[in-house]
Amino acid sequence: MLILFAAAKGMAELAERLGQPGIVGEILAGVLIGPSVFGWLQPSDFLSALSQLGALFLLFRVGLEVKSSELLKVGGTAALVASSGVVVPFLMGWGILLLWGGSRYEAIFVGASMVATSVGITAQVLSAHGLLHVISSKIILAAAVIDDVLGLLVLAVVSSATRGHLHWVELGLTALLAAGFTIVVARWGTRTMQAITPLVETSLRIAEAQFVIAMLLLFGLAALAVYAGVAAIIGAFLAGMALADSTGRRVHDLAQGVGELLVPFFLAGIGLKVSLSVFSEASTALLAGVILLAAIASKFIGCGLGAARLGRTEAIRIGVGMIPRGEVGMVVAQLGLAMGVIQQNIYSIVVFMSLVTTIVTPLLIRLAYKGLLRPSEEDTFRVG
Amino acid sequence: MLILFAAAKGMAELAERLGQPGIVGEILAGVLIGPSVFGWLQPSDFLSALSQLGALFLLFRVGLEVKSSELLKVGGTAALVASSGVVVPFLMGWGILLLWGGSRYEAIFVGASMVATSVGITAQVLSAHGLLHVISSKIILAAAVIDDVLGLLVLAVVSSATRGHLHWVELGLTALLAAGFTIVVARWGTRTMQAITPLVETSLRIAEAQFVIAMLLLFGLAALAVYAGVAAIIGAFLAGMALADSTGRRVHDLAQGVGELLVPFFLAGIGLKVSLSVFSEASTALLAGVILLAAIASKFIGCGLGAARLGRTEAIRIGVGMIPRGEVGMVVAQLGLAMGVIQQNIYSIVVFMSLVTTIVTPLLIRLAYKGLLRPSEEDTFRVG
Repeated sequence: MLILFAAAKGMAELAERLGQPGIVGEILAGVLIGPSVFGWLQPSDFLSALSQLGALFLLFRVGLEVKSSELLKVGGTAALVASSGVVVPFLMGWGILLLWGGSRYEAIFVGASMVATSVGITAQVLSAHGLLHVISSKIILAAAVIDDVLGLLVLAVVSSATRGHLHWVELGLTALLAAGFTIVVARWGTRTMQAITPLVETSLRIAEAQFVIAMLLLFGLAALAVYAGVAAIIGAFLAGMALADSTGRRVHDLAQGVGELLVPFFLAGIGLKVSLSVFSEASTALLAGVILLAAIASKFIGCGLGAARLGRTEAIRIGVGMIPRGEVGMVVAQLGLAMGVIQQNIYSIVVFMSLVTTIVTPLLIRLAYKGLLRPSEEDTFRVG
Repeated sequence: MLILFAAAKGMAELAERLGQPGIVGEILAGVLIGPSVFGWLQPSDFLSALSQLGALFLLFRVGLEVKSSELLKVGGTAALVASSGVVVPFLMGWGILLLWGGSRYEAIFVGASMVATSVGITAQVLSAHGLLHVISSKIILAAAVIDDVLGLLVLAVVSSATRGHLHWVELGLTALLAAGFTIVVARWGTRTMQAITPLVETSLRIAEAQFVIAMLLLFGLAALAVYAGVAAIIGAFLAGMALADSTGRRVHDLAQGVGELLVPFFLAGIGLKVSLSVFSEASTALLAGVILLAAIASKFIGCGLGAARLGRTEAIRIGVGMIPRGEVGMVVAQLGLAMGVIQQNIYSIVVFMSLVTTIVTPLLIRLAYKGLLRPSEEDTFRVG
């Protein structure tokens, strides 16, 4: 733990001094100390559990900064962004694999693995620079939530289609459950917590009762989200958002403490998992490069188009913010690998693509938000 | 995680309503959901890692509240308390086992396992009630640190004596290293951090630099403490103490957040490990009862005598605060078991004794500090 934390923070400092986001430094620290470069640390169950906890707290803190009413207001645009951000990457991934000579199923799986945005990194960059209140940031967050539900559906469709038959009823139920969970919590969560929190405050006798309730909601909704089929981090985000209006500064500070400790594990944990093995064969390396570029371009184009009516600047910001892929893509690829539909090298390419899109995003966000960004004034800087 | 956290906090609330310390509720929650009653949760590596992290943060936070200069001032009395608190329990445990018909080595091991105080629980109770600044609290903390070094020595002596020969040089080096580490950090840690912190503050560009440095010191000293042979929590306590004078409210708040999340895992983790198997045989249960009473009485008498010159009230408080045994006792017993010197049932008795002394201490502390205690005004109540 000491090694990982020290390396992450040391590299973050170095990155900041070089004028780069600290986050990139923390991820690179993971790459450096991980198996692919120095090999000081191996990914372990404990580190990956800490990393997942870090992601939960990251999204929870982001949720705390966001009012659900504001997010629901941008719902229409966000739905458009999410949808075209699903279609374009799928078609691109599918097309490239067919051109490369992959099988029909291989093309479908690679396309599907390029669909789901993982909003963790974007949220961290936006939150660190106090940019969560910009309209494009809100659309990114809302679109990422919708995107996660869509990603789940794509996964369900792909996996049942590959097995040869589509259970429409089952798919419908999956969709209903995931969308229902998200909508109910987003729509009524805030009001419920506004009603409950003061009650809890006055009736509980344990110390830091608000924080205890916040933690229970965080873990509870994260667990429920997984049952409903969406990612645990979406549950954590919704928990934070439900509490945004009702909790005081104290809960923010306490959650911030946990986040400061755990988020480096999430970031360096991403780096730890990077494997450079895709570069051992020239043709694989070439395909990896093409897929990576397509992954970046397709989300940028797809989401950017979806947000076109907001003007060029905002559309670019949204396009960039939606680039990072995450666990869902890897889950799709893993499923394909387990079903024998895709090869080991294609799997490695998907993992590589997920990680590198995550790593380049902070740099791209800095470019896209250039006008609003003042480094090293981080937390004090807010845009209404 | 959700189950454990919710159960711990639920039982804490229940305990507070019954007028008992919340801590007892959290430990009992562990007993209830653990394998010995309902069996909803089994102890796992991940939970025990969280529990250890919780203990580190607990002692770190206690350290933050304590100035090293104040602790060094009570060093003489604390040394006396620690020493007589080592001798009396050893003799009692040794005597009881001999009377019960145990072998010579068995008697030595049981005696040794009754030596080391584990200050975590006491620190938590005192800190929750804002009692860390009472003279007896300072002596308890200082004595616990010294006690840990002495416990290490007893362990070293016992294990080498059982192997038939004493390596005096090795023992001397062990003692020197452990005592040296503790004294150097306690003596010069605060001054060093007072010099370093402002420098760090102005020269680092990453966000929350003070907290990052604090975490590095916490994990660094905890790791060094283990290398030096003392418990990791002693390192965490020393790290907190070194930072007590130089860090602001912000680090306190952030560390508090981590603590609030993790300490329930430490407390309920203690409960999870309780096994009621010692009660399956009448003679074992009898011996367990006798050993338990002896463990409580011997520390109370030993440490109380060492603090006799402070008057009856303070001596009683110190005697009570030093009662809980912890991991060190279990380590001694485990060693004896591994060496074939003690039997499985004796091992179970030692584990039982360690846990029950921990569980009863919060109740006893409340009695001993009755005059100073005002429940439910917890964190706002300070005694200069």
